[in-house]
Amino acid sequence: MNLHGKQILGYKLSKQGTSHFQAYNPANGTSIDPLFYEASKDEVAKAFDLAEAAVLPYGEISRTDRAKFLETIADEILALDDDLIHRATQETGLPAGRITGERGRTMNQLKLFADVVRKGDFLEISIDTAKPNRTPFPKPDIRMINMPIGPVAIFGASNFPLAFSVAGGDTASALAAGCPVVVKAHPAHPSTSVLVGSAIRTAAEKTGLPEGVFSMLQGIGLHVGQEMVKNRFAKAVAFTGSLKGGKALFDLAAAREEPIPCFAEMGSTNPVFLLPERLSDDAASIASQYVDSVNLGVGQFCTNPGIVIGIKSKALDEFVEKAKEKLNQSTGGTMLHKGIKSNYDGKLKEISDQKGISVIASGAGQGACVGRAHLLKTDGGTFSANEILQEEIFGPASIIVECKDSAEMLRTANSFKGNLTATLQATSADLQNTKPLIRILERKVGRLIVNGFPTGLEVCYSMMHGGPFPATTDSRFTSVGTGAIKRFLRPVSFQNFPQDALVEELKNENNMGVWRIWDGELSTGSIIDS
Amino acid sequence: MNLHGKQILGYKLSKQGTSHFQAYNPANGTSIDPLFYEASKDEVAKAFDLAEAAVLPYGEISRTDRAKFLETIADEILALDDDLIHRATQETGLPAGRITGERGRTMNQLKLFADVVRKGDFLEISIDTAKPNRTPFPKPDIRMINMPIGPVAIFGASNFPLAFSVAGGDTASALAAGCPVVVKAHPAHPSTSVLVGSAIRTAAEKTGLPEGVFSMLQGIGLHVGQEMVKNRFAKAVAFTGSLKGGKALFDLAAAREEPIPCFAEMGSTNPVFLLPERLSDDAASIASQYVDSVNLGVGQFCTNPGIVIGIKSKALDEFVEKAKEKLNQSTGGTMLHKGIKSNYDGKLKEISDQKGISVIASGAGQGACVGRAHLLKTDGGTFSANEILQEEIFGPASIIVECKDSAEMLRTANSFKGNLTATLQATSADLQNTKPLIRILERKVGRLIVNGFPTGLEVCYSMMHGGPFPATTDSRFTSVGTGAIKRFLRPVSFQNFPQDALVEELKNENNMGVWRIWDGELSTGSIIDS
Repeated sequence: MNLHGKQILGYKLSKQGTSHFQAYNPANGTSIDPLFYEASKDEVAKAFDLAEAAVLPYGEISRTDRAKFLETIADEILALDDDLIHRATQETGLPAGRITGERGRTMNQLKLFADVVRKGDFLEISIDTAKPNRTPFPKPDIRMINMPIGPVAIFGASNFPLAFSVAGGDTASALAAGCPVVVKAHPAHPSTSVLVGSAIRTAAEKTGLPEGVFSMLQGIGLHVGQEMVKNRFAKAVAFTGSLKGGKALFDLAAAREEPIPCFAEMGSTNPVFLLPERLSDDAASIASQYVDSVNLGVGQFCTNPGIVIGIKSKALDEFVEKAKEKLNQSTGGTMLHKGIKSNYDGKLKEISDQKGISVIASGAGQGACVGRAHLLKTDGGTFSANEILQEEIFGPASIIVECKDSAEMLRTANSFKGNLTATLQATSADLQNTKPLIRILERKVGRLIVNGFPTGLEVCYSMMHGGPFPATTDSRFTSVGTGAIKRFLRPVSFQNFPQDALVEELKNENNMGVWRIWDGELSTGSIIDS
Repeated sequence: MNLHGKQILGYKLSKQGTSHFQAYNPANGTSIDPLFYEASKDEVAKAFDLAEAAVLPYGEISRTDRAKFLETIADEILALDDDLIHRATQETGLPAGRITGERGRTMNQLKLFADVVRKGDFLEISIDTAKPNRTPFPKPDIRMINMPIGPVAIFGASNFPLAFSVAGGDTASALAAGCPVVVKAHPAHPSTSVLVGSAIRTAAEKTGLPEGVFSMLQGIGLHVGQEMVKNRFAKAVAFTGSLKGGKALFDLAAAREEPIPCFAEMGSTNPVFLLPERLSDDAASIASQYVDSVNLGVGQFCTNPGIVIGIKSKALDEFVEKAKEKLNQSTGGTMLHKGIKSNYDGKLKEISDQKGISVIASGAGQGACVGRAHLLKTDGGTFSANEILQEEIFGPASIIVECKDSAEMLRTANSFKGNLTATLQATSADLQNTKPLIRILERKVGRLIVNGFPTGLEVCYSMMHGGPFPATTDSRFTSVGTGAIKRFLRPVSFQNFPQDALVEELKNENNMGVWRIWDGELSTGSIIDS
């Protein structure tokens, strides 16, 4: 495998820029070869020129071929074998087991979207048949189908070097929608990105696709991403990362002459509410699962449980003691890169320095990139009054908020801005007693969990991984699960088209058996001329 | 009927402001009583405070009751009887027949959304059942359902005083989604708006809804609308009107601390392509229908056919001659108000003054507010080189673009920005011969029409009334037809919730028989625990 430091522009490699950077091994503090060259303005433009040229030919291949492309990407990623596991481990400090698991998830995502493409529900076809004798005006024949929005600019995330990166959920869903993709590799794992990007390119070649269907650019500064979002052929943006980064891209996308949608998933504090009956039933066990969830992946998940809210009680005291005890035994872990580690330390200090909050436990851990676990504590009044306490600490830290009573717990819930998730540790009786809390949280988050923890994200049909701002820039869309494809589709209606000018899925005979809304009712049937 | 000039704030009336305006009768140039007071900042805030307070109670009523509310609004509008027809006619210059027809459409829209609400497809429910024995991790139970996004700020349009105004498609779809609504009445028909707004209020009272479900504000300057979009409780904006107005609201919505989606439908030139075989078959008849479509509603439709593109030929000459002849006989009509008439004259002059374009026909018409029909002509090269020629002339004017050959017609098609519609006058053979043109247009518009004209918008399940910028600010959504409800919904997932804590539609027994995606497959069945 040729681990080059160049841009992948369709089927060619390109190296025009002079500014360069290297990957960094957070486990031992060394730089990793080769040099990666930042994409030039011309290279960004070239990637989108190719993508634009690929829109029509890629849009015209059959759904079967599109599904095959996605599956071939999965095969090619698997074929990278130990090269991939080794590089990704080196560049991220994540253990090989985690990378292997994440590779499986990445492949499963691609295969799930292949299923979605084959099934065709995502076309959301609706057919209103003509009523030529209707008065006062005849009703025309109108048929609507979802079509790809156009080239998508995708930004790889640092914390999932495979599943949210070059061939991650954003790329899989955009390609499934029929959109060519231009990915900006995350500079924290550029070699991993080259390996995966090359796998996608190989899959495109093997399945005979136009080269512009995929390009990948390297860059460590802001300008490559900015050029991507500003490119006139870009029709949507997908990003997973920080609030600052996501909001900047959103603003850029909205300020274009032609504004385009920008789907930025920007993290979350994922509040966990401990309800009285459940807490008194099981304080120790919940505390133990909580600390495990905080420490998972060294806390580098957007679903990390950053805030836990309970009501002052003996059971809460027991929960706090048990959590402190377990967290004090945490051994820490290597974080993804220097920047993340220093941001973690900085944010932790900023939050700890706020009035009325204290660090009540901290784990062990040494080394330039090792994140040490921390537990903080405050009260409901302090929390609700200080918005800074709602800011995400990206790493293994969490705040316990002690409320005076259930009214203060409700006020605390009300004070939350948008989040990806909220969790209720609750018995059935707790849930019945706390409907107002559930109603508040439904408006604040994309996913509500009972008696689990928010980490561990199921990639499925019913997953909503998104939420009101600042969790994401558009609360109406998910970036995980099959619904992610909806971000990249736009409906087009065809009025009074003759049968032979319609695509197969819109013709009367529903030869492909897709679900269609036929005069308002879902059906897989064929339409018989009457 | 008390034709007051106050704000409707829930169940109360309010008059805090001092600045006021009057409606204007464009047919005779007189002002119409009463005085309308512009909403103050406080009144805008109060409307949204009420709307926010209504979110949870309105969200909790049954779908049956929500449907009943929509139907009651339709009944109450009908009950306004001649008062409504009379006032709307006075304020808009539109004939009583048109207003009566539009009232029917408005009522039908409300009833269609009542059907949508009862049916429940819009909930887009998806249920992934648990797999407790899956390895390496058990699969949780996850159930997703669409929920209302929150209060919606809606701007009434001038050109449909009923169907796109206070109780128009935006209001009907937002209320159907479960969202409280704050409408800014269009200052061109404030009395009509008071009548319709009062009908909605009465319907809310009769069906026992929280008052904040609907408020209506008056304003003639920009500040009322700006305050609405900036209000922190507003979660979406819907607008139909000019590019300038829509883009300003979009920018304001995107610049908020919490950005919110803004759906602005901003008009279009709706190109009509005359393909050779069809044109030579039927030039005279197409020309006649074309001029009728240009003149319909004095050209004040966003679907007005503003540009016609043909290939130099005898048939095109015949088409042009026939169109000129018919248009020269046009008698003109009263436009909606002084501003629209003066904008029409100004834009017409600006376009006519461009190099390489000439006025080839004009109709009769006299009076301060009478719009005279105009036909202009240019060639393909001139058209493609000058973006100003693509700007909408809101009124009864249209440009014929003569192309040298089919290649120039394709280049002309390629030069178009986003539009609501494109029309192909084409035989089956034409359509087969011109697939590249269709492929280009699919990317540029929301609706493609064969052998009709774009005016006459069917309100149905398959209607896409939207398109790429600058036709709208989000090409993925329609403002007409049942799909309009999707703008105001956001999915929420419920993970591992016990049955008795789920809403009825998410429970295993599908007592309401709604369509749900069950482990990836559409079904109306009930889920049996296994």
